[in-house]
Amino acid sequence: MTNKAIFMHGTNDMIWKEIDMPVVHDKDVLVKVDIVGICGSDVHYYQHGKIGDFVVDGDFILGHECAGEVVAVGKEVKNLAVGDRVALEPGKTCGKCEFCKSGQYNLCPDVEFFATPPYHGVFANYVAHPEDMCFKLPDNVSNLEGALVEPLAVGLHATGKGNVKLGDTVVIFGTGCIGLVTLLSSKARGAAKIIVVDVLPNRLETAKRLGATHVINAKEENVLSKIDEITDGQGAHVVIDTAGAEITVKQTADVVKRGGTIVLVGMTPKDEVEFNFMKLMGKEGELKTIFRYRNLYPVAINAIASGAINVKDIVSHEFDFEQTKEAFDFVVNNAKDVVKAVIKIN
Amino acid sequence: MTNKAIFMHGTNDMIWKEIDMPVVHDKDVLVKVDIVGICGSDVHYYQHGKIGDFVVDGDFILGHECAGEVVAVGKEVKNLAVGDRVALEPGKTCGKCEFCKSGQYNLCPDVEFFATPPYHGVFANYVAHPEDMCFKLPDNVSNLEGALVEPLAVGLHATGKGNVKLGDTVVIFGTGCIGLVTLLSSKARGAAKIIVVDVLPNRLETAKRLGATHVINAKEENVLSKIDEITDGQGAHVVIDTAGAEITVKQTADVVKRGGTIVLVGMTPKDEVEFNFMKLMGKEGELKTIFRYRNLYPVAINAIASGAINVKDIVSHEFDFEQTKEAFDFVVNNAKDVVKAVIKIN
Amino acid sequence: MTNKAIFMHGTNDMIWKEIDMPVVHDKDVLVKVDIVGICGSDVHYYQHGKIGDFVVDGDFILGHECAGEVVAVGKEVKNLAVGDRVALEPGKTCGKCEFCKSGQYNLCPDVEFFATPPYHGVFANYVAHPEDMCFKLPDNVSNLEGALVEPLAVGLHATGKGNVKLGDTVVIFGTGCIGLVTLLSSKARGAAKIIVVDVLPNRLETAKRLGATHVINAKEENVLSKIDEITDGQGAHVVIDTAGAEITVKQTADVVKRGGTIVLVGMTPKDEVEFNFMKLMGKEGELKTIFRYRNLYPVAINAIASGAINVKDIVSHEFDFEQTKEAFDFVVNNAKDVVKAVIKIN
Amino acid sequence: MTNKAIFMHGTNDMIWKEIDMPVVHDKDVLVKVDIVGICGSDVHYYQHGKIGDFVVDGDFILGHECAGEVVAVGKEVKNLAVGDRVALEPGKTCGKCEFCKSGQYNLCPDVEFFATPPYHGVFANYVAHPEDMCFKLPDNVSNLEGALVEPLAVGLHATGKGNVKLGDTVVIFGTGCIGLVTLLSSKARGAAKIIVVDVLPNRLETAKRLGATHVINAKEENVLSKIDEITDGQGAHVVIDTAGAEITVKQTADVVKRGGTIVLVGMTPKDEVEFNFMKLMGKEGELKTIFRYRNLYPVAINAIASGAINVKDIVSHEFDFEQTKEAFDFVVNNAKDVVKAVIKIN
Repeated sequence: MTNKAIFMHGTNDMIWKEIDMPVVHDKDVLVKVDIVGICGSDVHYYQHGKIGDFVVDGDFILGHECAGEVVAVGKEVKNLAVGDRVALEPGKTCGKCEFCKSGQYNLCPDVEFFATPPYHGVFANYVAHPEDMCFKLPDNVSNLEGALVEPLAVGLHATGKGNVKLGDTVVIFGTGCIGLVTLLSSKARGAAKIIVVDVLPNRLETAKRLGATHVINAKEENVLSKIDEITDGQGAHVVIDTAGAEITVKQTADVVKRGGTIVLVGMTPKDEVEFNFMKLMGKEGELKTIFRYRNLYPVAINAIASGAINVKDIVSHEFDFEQTKEAFDFVVNNAKDVVKAVIKIN
Repeated sequence: MTNKAIFMHGTNDMIWKEIDMPVVHDKDVLVKVDIVGICGSDVHYYQHGKIGDFVVDGDFILGHECAGEVVAVGKEVKNLAVGDRVALEPGKTCGKCEFCKSGQYNLCPDVEFFATPPYHGVFANYVAHPEDMCFKLPDNVSNLEGALVEPLAVGLHATGKGNVKLGDTVVIFGTGCIGLVTLLSSKARGAAKIIVVDVLPNRLETAKRLGATHVINAKEENVLSKIDEITDGQGAHVVIDTAGAEITVKQTADVVKRGGTIVLVGMTPKDEVEFNFMKLMGKEGELKTIFRYRNLYPVAINAIASGAINVKDIVSHEFDFEQTKEAFDFVVNNAKDVVKAVIKIN
Repeated sequence: MTNKAIFMHGTNDMIWKEIDMPVVHDKDVLVKVDIVGICGSDVHYYQHGKIGDFVVDGDFILGHECAGEVVAVGKEVKNLAVGDRVALEPGKTCGKCEFCKSGQYNLCPDVEFFATPPYHGVFANYVAHPEDMCFKLPDNVSNLEGALVEPLAVGLHATGKGNVKLGDTVVIFGTGCIGLVTLLSSKARGAAKIIVVDVLPNRLETAKRLGATHVINAKEENVLSKIDEITDGQGAHVVIDTAGAEITVKQTADVVKRGGTIVLVGMTPKDEVEFNFMKLMGKEGELKTIFRYRNLYPVAINAIASGAINVKDIVSHEFDFEQTKEAFDFVVNNAKDVVKAVIKIN
Repeated sequence: MTNKAIFMHGTNDMIWKEIDMPVVHDKDVLVKVDIVGICGSDVHYYQHGKIGDFVVDGDFILGHECAGEVVAVGKEVKNLAVGDRVALEPGKTCGKCEFCKSGQYNLCPDVEFFATPPYHGVFANYVAHPEDMCFKLPDNVSNLEGALVEPLAVGLHATGKGNVKLGDTVVIFGTGCIGLVTLLSSKARGAAKIIVVDVLPNRLETAKRLGATHVINAKEENVLSKIDEITDGQGAHVVIDTAGAEITVKQTADVVKRGGTIVLVGMTPKDEVEFNFMKLMGKEGELKTIFRYRNLYPVAINAIASGAINVKDIVSHEFDFEQTKEAFDFVVNNAKDVVKAVIKIN
């Protein structure tokens, strides 16, 4: 068994290396990686070498959306066996701090997250990971779907924090991968009207195909008056921004219903945005943010298995492991067309 | 315009009377009734003349599940117009007590509820009702579906109080009308596994058709070990009893997951049931009850309109207004076959 | 019985008029007003003639914080009797809209609120008000305390929405009346550390007397590093801004703990504020706003009666009814010294 | 350093042994035990050798309510140092299961809990324990108070699950140690009326001293009519049973308010109790149970440090380590007089 990995090597470059087989600790399983999705953050590191305070130092393995097959287990592993197919939740947390103990482990300050420097990611043949962060896939959930659980969990967390409920009207700004999984999650939670806003016609078309009841092209229509019309002047119960544009963050306060909830998911280019808090206050609105996700892998897998969410519909491009660099370059150059590209490692 | 109504006239008997057209107060609308469902409580009054402390005194109009068309509006009516089709929420509440003001209007001690003595029901051609308790039906929701909003609201309230969520496993005891709307509501809220338990094979078949992922015939299988098997020994996140049998109430504590929730909906024949609270405590389980519903007509209508719930699938029998007594007698004599019978008034 | 009232007469002027005794509708009580507090909004109308879109047109009676004695009751009044002392909740709501029915009556679009144009306030000898908005005061709660229930309800709502809990650390920006009732509410809800920030030494002194465990003078100390020190670098569970300054709104994101909650209460001079949403997102923080309050008069009265809150400690100045104009002018000219001025009508 | 421990040696007998100094793992601290409280469960094991399925096998160290001083630290300990005084949370959990990861670690099936067979307790001079389960006591919280955090956490969990809020009316059945810490917790959370029911006059006296606003001697007064009178016929927002008697469990349904919550804390002698679920359903009441507690040591310590809870007031008897067996025998023979006995190890 050899373990080949592809490393980013400075920005916009990659090299192949053969690396040691990972050490499998007592509570770890060894996973033969099958599918790895390319996330926007991977692409951002590839192009810029950093995200905020996280700076890539030296050759670095990207990739954190993955699934594969268990090929060995540590001696204290209890719930997984060789041959099980699993989705890997990428963050190892301490289990000891107040955040971990209160169920908010995504806020653990000591998290070690795949492909967030200095922790390598999973564009490799083999990776070891703690058993409790590897979630068994049932027979009717493929490895491809397993790899997509990671972005889906973001959409589930956004809609969970926003408390999207049966019968609700939801506005989603943005039709990138996260916008679309938020759409799928909203639909699975029972939202009755899902209004998706973007400026790219092909993406809005995709949104419609995935279940949006209304789409608005912000280049062609007045977003505020259109939403006003669709919601009979009431606004939406939940407004989720995945676009991360200054204008969309601002508009959340306009289109949320009295007593409604805004959820910010998209990172804005500038940290600060001018926001009309007085408008929000006049509605007693709430604004929530999310940081990754927590306790949602089982939910995602159950929802895929039951048919409530067809997550594989978001995959727009597939590449072989050998083409990983080409895949990254393709994504960089075709951002508008790529919803989700995945790499088939095997 | 004449207003004909059918009254129960002692138990197991009914008579027709022509009654005055209802007075339409300033905030009322006058509704030409189109469809009225027969509820188990209607049948109980018809057979026994009372439910608990509520005793029918004199000739009495039954019926509280209804929809129809607005044919006149009071002078302060703002949001409805002649020609609108509406579902009628049957309870008029005071709007002033602490329960009404805190959003728990179903607990208002001064509620006036259709077909709960001394307040007449709606087996009549015309009824006046406050505008705010009449919910406009969109074009793609029929009057039949509008009448079914009432029982559906019970299922929505049970699953809402039980906090049935995307990906959950739910056990439902009972496949009467309320069991089935609880099933539809669980599915619409995203439950991944829905296990339905009863002793009637035809009803379990219906449950399967409506979305149950597993059905258990309690006469043929061991309920506890079967649920244990389906849930990998974990039990269900939410267990909802709509059967009202002593045995099913008891079993809720067995099949609920650690930290899970039981919801009691069905009325038990005896008020008291021997219950293993120590078992519940070992799991830190919760037990909730519901009394009617609140704030769910809009949710139900949105869910029907969006296709999330196909409520008309629960209708098993339809009768004309003239056949109302025959319909009641049929329901009395064919309880096992009738899921939901409705009367077409027009 | 004559009914004298004082009206604002253009800005910064007032005149006395004798007005008709109010009509007492069937569900109203007639209250002989005893105490009326002067609110910041009253003073703002007095000086500027408007707040946002609410413009005073013609002579206008201010005042909405009041208590008095029931001297007559409408014929459908059930729970109050002549001689009862009551605190008046100033907003009459429709009881019919979705907000009223779901317990969020403070968001009712048809609210009629004392001293918010075009609805007159209560600087008068007599006022009629619906029974259900008049809350009986127990023997050990004075009319003065009854009048203070109104501002206290704002502090209770802010801390309730922020979910201030036993053992929490709370930061409160601002020591005006609302800052101080937020402090009292935080303490009564069990907060262990209450850090109050302002620039006025005398107000910070008052905050300390009322239960602040730490006070920070933002002119003399670095607010961020001081809070960092007090909270061991963790930040506060709940951060409540009552100051409405651009700088304090911004700082909420700095001093809130991971997973914590910000509540905005103070109106900012400009509608828009530059806010670092990325910082909030890194903590998965939430930001809530409040609009008035709901269902809190009984809570406030119970808390005063039990001794959990000593609300009368916020009163800094008392005036007789005849001195109402002088009182307003005094408040205008001594804003830094006046925490809460009240008018004794009788 | 020698490590002496006292073991139960069959029922109603104890022996002293010198045991090895505990192994201090990398993330453990070594604690010199100072104070250990005697819990009802310790006494039950002492008398009967088992509780439910937990059977004492061989000589066994009791005790799980304790505090002491850190005298050594493992090499990965980060937040504690030699000399720190700490309260020990007795349950070591796996940190990996779905219950641990979702913040419900008290439901971890693999918990190792002091003095629950087969895990020894802390009636010893030294004990090693994971750093994250040892909570530093501030200067103004004594070791005695630190040892009392354990039972207090039960009261905090009961009142937290019951959502006791500012202004609420609470009924507490039982005045044992857990009844009294529930009382202290209710008061600290702001309850306005706290009605305590028992049959022991001296205990009711203690309840009054600790903050009960009303006490009812069930031998002398009609509990239901008395509570009806105190609550104006409304019942209590929250009803907490710590007595574990069949009659008190039943009465919870009588005295809870419409829409209110029952919390069961006390273990009943028989597992099953006849309960009037129909009465509960007519009120839409909820019934919750608790199993130990979670995430409450910091809350308890903050509440003691801030003065919100004077937990040491529940201590009725103190004994030296040498008298441990005498202490147990005293508690067995004077159950009505002993609220909380503690052993001073040093």
